[in-house]
Amino acid sequence: MLTFQLTNQGEKLYQQIYTHVREEILSGRLPAGSKLPSKRNFARNHGISVITVETAYDLLMSEGYLYSLPKKGYFVSSIETGFLTGDSNTWDDHKREKWDQSKTRSRIPAKDKAVKELGIENSPQNLPNSKPTFLYDLSSDGMNPDAFPFTVWAKLSREVLASEQRRLLQPSPTNGVRELREAIGKHLSSFRGIEVDPEQIVVGAGTEYLYGLLIQLLGQEKVYGMENPGYQKLKKIYDHYRVVNQTTNIDAQGLHPAALREAHIQVAHLSPNHHFPTGITMPIGRRLEILSWAKEEENRYIIEDDYDSEFRSNGRPIPTLFSIDQNEKVIYLNTFSKSLTPTIRISYMVLPLPLMKRFYEELSFYSCTVSNFEQYTLAEFIQRGYFEKHINRMRLYYSRQRKKLLSLLEASPLASLCEVQENDAGLHFLMELKTTKSQATLTQMLAQEGIRLQPVSEYYAPKEGAKEHLYLLKYSNLEMQRLGEVFEKIYQCAK
Amino acid sequence: MLTFQLTNQGEKLYQQIYTHVREEILSGRLPAGSKLPSKRNFARNHGISVITVETAYDLLMSEGYLYSLPKKGYFVSSIETGFLTGDSNTWDDHKREKWDQSKTRSRIPAKDKAVKELGIENSPQNLPNSKPTFLYDLSSDGMNPDAFPFTVWAKLSREVLASEQRRLLQPSPTNGVRELREAIGKHLSSFRGIEVDPEQIVVGAGTEYLYGLLIQLLGQEKVYGMENPGYQKLKKIYDHYRVVNQTTNIDAQGLHPAALREAHIQVAHLSPNHHFPTGITMPIGRRLEILSWAKEEENRYIIEDDYDSEFRSNGRPIPTLFSIDQNEKVIYLNTFSKSLTPTIRISYMVLPLPLMKRFYEELSFYSCTVSNFEQYTLAEFIQRGYFEKHINRMRLYYSRQRKKLLSLLEASPLASLCEVQENDAGLHFLMELKTTKSQATLTQMLAQEGIRLQPVSEYYAPKEGAKEHLYLLKYSNLEMQRLGEVFEKIYQCAK
Repeated sequence: MLTFQLTNQGEKLYQQIYTHVREEILSGRLPAGSKLPSKRNFARNHGISVITVETAYDLLMSEGYLYSLPKKGYFVSSIETGFLTGDSNTWDDHKREKWDQSKTRSRIPAKDKAVKELGIENSPQNLPNSKPTFLYDLSSDGMNPDAFPFTVWAKLSREVLASEQRRLLQPSPTNGVRELREAIGKHLSSFRGIEVDPEQIVVGAGTEYLYGLLIQLLGQEKVYGMENPGYQKLKKIYDHYRVVNQTTNIDAQGLHPAALREAHIQVAHLSPNHHFPTGITMPIGRRLEILSWAKEEENRYIIEDDYDSEFRSNGRPIPTLFSIDQNEKVIYLNTFSKSLTPTIRISYMVLPLPLMKRFYEELSFYSCTVSNFEQYTLAEFIQRGYFEKHINRMRLYYSRQRKKLLSLLEASPLASLCEVQENDAGLHFLMELKTTKSQATLTQMLAQEGIRLQPVSEYYAPKEGAKEHLYLLKYSNLEMQRLGEVFEKIYQCAK
Repeated sequence: MLTFQLTNQGEKLYQQIYTHVREEILSGRLPAGSKLPSKRNFARNHGISVITVETAYDLLMSEGYLYSLPKKGYFVSSIETGFLTGDSNTWDDHKREKWDQSKTRSRIPAKDKAVKELGIENSPQNLPNSKPTFLYDLSSDGMNPDAFPFTVWAKLSREVLASEQRRLLQPSPTNGVRELREAIGKHLSSFRGIEVDPEQIVVGAGTEYLYGLLIQLLGQEKVYGMENPGYQKLKKIYDHYRVVNQTTNIDAQGLHPAALREAHIQVAHLSPNHHFPTGITMPIGRRLEILSWAKEEENRYIIEDDYDSEFRSNGRPIPTLFSIDQNEKVIYLNTFSKSLTPTIRISYMVLPLPLMKRFYEELSFYSCTVSNFEQYTLAEFIQRGYFEKHINRMRLYYSRQRKKLLSLLEASPLASLCEVQENDAGLHFLMELKTTKSQATLTQMLAQEGIRLQPVSEYYAPKEGAKEHLYLLKYSNLEMQRLGEVFEKIYQCAK
């Protein structure tokens, strides 16, 4: 039974609970798997409100100390002792530091006042910074800190700050500074066979922001279509802009024009060059069909999302929709999130000429959302060839990660239970598991072990279309050192 | 008559025209005030299309070589020879360099193909980067390049890039990194008497972006109200989000609740601490009335825009609406555009608790739009006291600018024709001119001299409510060296 003295001085009550439980766990007095008292019991025993206990439990969950099982309650996660079967070296310093940092960072999730007055519910989504943290996350889009070219970036940034002071303070055009758009234009020409005028390029603070602009440009009365499975955030954005949107199922070649017609879609979002999450590359025949679909009516457009084009190492040279389009129907979208880091928040889109004209007429009152300081730094980074070098280096790094991962998998007993769908490279692949457990049970069992394995079904809407036991393996920042161990754990849970 | 040989080789036709006319002007062969052939005549004489000539003329206008008068045609601007009555030192190197840069930068405004195929109209707004440039702009919000703390910024930026690599690559929470929000929270506490939890602060890429988020948060079905006169861009944003919006006239104390009730407004945007452009500070009595208005109905909110609060040197200590609000009705909005530079694109808002809760529930799927690199640098800048020092320095700088401006005005013959409305400091004041000329004629005459004097009527919708001959004088980046001369020119035109 967990009891201790709460005081009315100093720290908030929920913080006292948080600190106490955390210490109990870290000291090993509350071992992995221990069940915590229910919120209700805890509150009654200490004469405090359930909401206070909830807040403390949420915080502990968000930081990975606890996990919850529906209708069962709260349990202590396996942190150092549970997960690391004796060998303390596998819990390396890097990870430990990261872990410690994450604890410090998300200490206080919300104003105590807010919690008390508003009764923020017992769900991590309601609290900021409180996505569950896993000890080993196979679904992370994270960047390996060694992968970002910090030295070059710092050098260029210093040079720009020293020599471009006047331009840094002059407002950027709404679509970004000319230097950056020229650099992007050249890059698109060499790497993607896309020939554009820099004026057709619009730079913005992330793809989500550009979607907002596109809705304003193309019109809120249109019907927007998304791939199923696909990028789920898009639906949220469309919903928040109150635009009608529909998902359409893809087949083995990607999106089918018949599905678009049936759903009366006018603006189709697709990733023909590397579909997420299936990895499908749309063949040329289907591409032409999609372009024909767009041509049929004046109000139809295609948004071609080329989000990770830089990393398809064995990419077949199928031209982008944008470059084969003859009718000014395709908007090309790309980002530096995958090729540099998502935390830099720079994306861009390329507009066909009539839309470019409309953009300048209607939306040029908006200020560009990317800081001049980073626009000029990135322009230099691309212009001087560093971006190309970086991409080559990263491509090699990712292909090595991929190979290591596959060989570790092959050497593991897990190999006997799984089949890998390789598709066309990128930063992830799919793994199908043969197991008698349900998908929900398996992912929960793994979560209990601190392992996050993401089912592809999470990208399906409605979920029913999804195949059971198909999982994503993202390897952009996987620590290979412990992966064998992780595969072993997955095997133990799945078998 | 302007004639020359066009070729079909090499440069595009409009570029040839552009280059030729520009050279004629720079060499002095086409002196200031010369009328250019009409587009139609020019096109006919050279056997080319009117659109080609239009494009060249637009480009020349956008770079300040030409200006146009409605129904009269195109004329050569006063550049070096015209404006500078003989003394070449007054056309200082700094300005010349800036001028030359601006020419280089906006050389090619749009794809020639676009111009030909789509017939982009003869209006600078349709071309990117083509706001008219003036030799002396009294309406510029520009920053003095010497004012930005480049040395400190470069130092902090270098430190952050060297020591925070891991955190730089970890996704920021949707409302910004904790360090920056904590720094902003402390700043608000010391400087504005606003006590908030950092979780209530939402950092975003500029105020315009935050407006978009607010519309999504408060709802598109609401009626949004703006001050008249006021910040005109806001209406464009509301229109593009398709939300109903209304302007309401302010009186001598600012916005009146009766006007809000009459227009059935639910969300009122106002700048009570320093109204733009009139400079009015809303007295405490009116503040309480506005708060009562908000309290009357559940769906009413106030957006308090505190855009330049840092620079009101003799500011009376009237508390912000946010800090005296008892009913969670006020959203506080501020930006680093005025206090650092608009080109850095960092603004923030402070949400009352119930809205904060709704924000996390509904909008936390959005990624933060500001780069981690700059969030951490700015956090350090504030935390280590540099921001406070910078503000103090700038406050002094602006108050000196203001004094210099006023004394130059007093010493000028223009003083006899004008009355200055000082109000409560900030970065601009208002000047009323006594003249028999119409406002339109006067501003056009001044434009011909390369001088931009902005009438306050531009901030009125409808324009009829505006006082004639009331002008803004913005002094954040005025070059004092030539201001006497500029006042003399204004006097010559106005008398």
